[in-house]
Amino acid sequence: MNYLENKLQEQTPTLQEQEKLKNIVSAIASDINAICKTEGIDATPLEVGSVSKGTNLKSSDIDLFITFSRSYPVEYIEKKGLEIGHAVLENAIEKYAEHPYVSGSVSGIKIDIVPAFRINEGERIVSSVDRTPLHTIYVKSRTDSKMVHDIRLLKVFLKEINVYGSEVAKSGFSGYICEIAIIAFGTFEKFIQYMANLKGKLIVPENCDKEFNEPVIIIDPVDPTRNAGAAVSVENLSKLKLAAKLYVTRREDILFNPEPVIKYDRKTIMKAFVLKKPDIIDDIIYPQAVRLKNRIWDIFQKSGFMPFSSELYMGENIEILIEYMRNKLPDAQKHMGPPAESNESIKFIDAWKGNSRLMRGPYIMGDRIYVDTKPRYTELEEIIKIELEKSDIGKNLNQYKGEIKVVSGKDVNKLNVAKKFYSKSLF
Amino acid sequence: MNYLENKLQEQTPTLQEQEKLKNIVSAIASDINAICKTEGIDATPLEVGSVSKGTNLKSSDIDLFITFSRSYPVEYIEKKGLEIGHAVLENAIEKYAEHPYVSGSVSGIKIDIVPAFRINEGERIVSSVDRTPLHTIYVKSRTDSKMVHDIRLLKVFLKEINVYGSEVAKSGFSGYICEIAIIAFGTFEKFIQYMANLKGKLIVPENCDKEFNEPVIIIDPVDPTRNAGAAVSVENLSKLKLAAKLYVTRREDILFNPEPVIKYDRKTIMKAFVLKKPDIIDDIIYPQAVRLKNRIWDIFQKSGFMPFSSELYMGENIEILIEYMRNKLPDAQKHMGPPAESNESIKFIDAWKGNSRLMRGPYIMGDRIYVDTKPRYTELEEIIKIELEKSDIGKNLNQYKGEIKVVSGKDVNKLNVAKKFYSKSLF
Repeated sequence: MNYLENKLQEQTPTLQEQEKLKNIVSAIASDINAICKTEGIDATPLEVGSVSKGTNLKSSDIDLFITFSRSYPVEYIEKKGLEIGHAVLENAIEKYAEHPYVSGSVSGIKIDIVPAFRINEGERIVSSVDRTPLHTIYVKSRTDSKMVHDIRLLKVFLKEINVYGSEVAKSGFSGYICEIAIIAFGTFEKFIQYMANLKGKLIVPENCDKEFNEPVIIIDPVDPTRNAGAAVSVENLSKLKLAAKLYVTRREDILFNPEPVIKYDRKTIMKAFVLKKPDIIDDIIYPQAVRLKNRIWDIFQKSGFMPFSSELYMGENIEILIEYMRNKLPDAQKHMGPPAESNESIKFIDAWKGNSRLMRGPYIMGDRIYVDTKPRYTELEEIIKIELEKSDIGKNLNQYKGEIKVVSGKDVNKLNVAKKFYSKSLF
Repeated sequence: MNYLENKLQEQTPTLQEQEKLKNIVSAIASDINAICKTEGIDATPLEVGSVSKGTNLKSSDIDLFITFSRSYPVEYIEKKGLEIGHAVLENAIEKYAEHPYVSGSVSGIKIDIVPAFRINEGERIVSSVDRTPLHTIYVKSRTDSKMVHDIRLLKVFLKEINVYGSEVAKSGFSGYICEIAIIAFGTFEKFIQYMANLKGKLIVPENCDKEFNEPVIIIDPVDPTRNAGAAVSVENLSKLKLAAKLYVTRREDILFNPEPVIKYDRKTIMKAFVLKKPDIIDDIIYPQAVRLKNRIWDIFQKSGFMPFSSELYMGENIEILIEYMRNKLPDAQKHMGPPAESNESIKFIDAWKGNSRLMRGPYIMGDRIYVDTKPRYTELEEIIKIELEKSDIGKNLNQYKGEIKVVSGKDVNKLNVAKKFYSKSLF
């Protein structure tokens, strides 16, 4: 398949580029070594990540670990890690994953310098970053140049179909999954052939008897209790299955030319809800944005506004789009009460007696009592406001509930979320 | 409970009225006897039904059977039955149940004269009317005057809550069920007490091990293979349960004063579908009318017009009312395709390629492929017409499909079905 090989060539670093990365790593590593020697710290620099494994695509970051002896307390390595990081990397900023670490760049190449404990295979890890060096050792010891090529090819393929990346907002396949898959299946072709025919969950190794609930189960070879595929969504698994089918049946016309159909004249009703994204990393904000979207959908649904599509976009702002059926509620809604035979039935009748919102009934349908009632509120924006006020939409978003801007009519089409909505295609 | 005893008194025939019925029956019976004697026919008149059992309410009909020897062929008793009927009843007309029979009136009292075979308990019946005399014998032999009183009381109670009557359109409790219930439970109070606490199906006798699917299972004492409660709907069973609860808790305020809430200003959309009722008995037409109503509801539902209430009225016309959300469809509908992993997925994509109705996609959501499409038709009346054309709505209604009148807007409120709709109350 020429298209894919072309893409791979475009994205494989040149020898010069690899050389440049190697030189940057050596220079920083020797700086770290020097500091450790001078200060008498039992720690060594260790290059990890795709660059170290040779499976990197163009413009990959460098991940450089400082692996400390396990005799140090966590607080020490966190403090020393930052100190050394700043010493070897000018203008670096501090970031926070499980430990704090420094992040900066040299000659345009992004570098993270991360402290971790030095762990041998089988030893207990302290935090999940301690596992990373083991991944590097595992992959390097089991791949030859053909497999490295196929790992890159798989990454390019997954990027093309938009399911590559382990960020929460992407919920895709990580680089490490690509490495495990090629090691497990031998070649790109064999893995894709397998995916084209797979029904249900993706489980690697196939004979694994571990119980995980996720749709993708990739047992981490260096830690069999961990599912390296836990973050992959069922949607992205489905995309890979379909893409694999298209690949093996040589349907490049669909696979690499999704050309989305865009028709703006849907004559539907749309509203968008926009709020500024707080200055917190996406992996934390994204699940809260999804929750907000689901909450707004539920309010539309329960109140009778009949939502039928939604979209979420996260850039500078969080933008949520809902496409729906009704702008205003009717003056009567069917309200289901208890079964006629239950002891609640008379209470229900008494509760509605004389209520000015009662439009019809109580009446019995099937085995239950119903009333038709005038809803308390009938205006959409009013209902959304009242309901969101009562809702927990996540630690970091709750405080911005009052600042959600409602966008209606043609203005919706100007938003990024509308572009994403209209251009929705297979991959 | 005075209210109910008052109602009972109002509806219990006076001694004179009972005397009058008795005299009419005697006169006709002796006429029948005379004919049979003259012509040498082995047949005898037999009074059946509530009048014969003394459980009748005011303005009950008289049911007079002519029971023929089983040695006659069916054709003979049908022919002779009509002949004798016409001979003893002036200006009678012929009707048709399982056998043809004659129906007329004397001094304002309606009389049916029905031919049947003379069957003893345990003998096989030829048609279901042959069972009727056995019911009469069973009830008369097991009831005293207190029980007759309580049977009438139960009938009045069921009439009050609008669940009395075995016609298909009513799907209620028959007079025979009332008789069995009082014989089984002893008194009205005990039966109502039982109903007030009943969960699930009504099964009489309680320890019955027969399997019937219906919500009400009343084993016919003269034929244990027959469910005498088969016609009762779950809705009417629910009404009786609730009414019994109200009765035992002395909530006459709800039970006998349903005073329906009527508010015409629902600000919803309604349409009614009206066609002339064919000249066929209600028991046959009613299920077809229900089917038509359900079919229209389904069309609203599937096409996206969002029905949320419906009502059926059957008088001179069949009137079907649908209350719903949308009058016109949006230009985009979500259309679900196959699972991405299935072999149909590529066919689905190919099928929609270049289709002018495609508004968005194909795209993957969860584990399936979807497209947003412009619906083929967007006007409600057009869709109803096209869909009904394709539908089987019953043997006797199919030919009138083209004549269904659609009523919209304020004109709907003038229809009987609208009155029924707005006045829907508990009983």
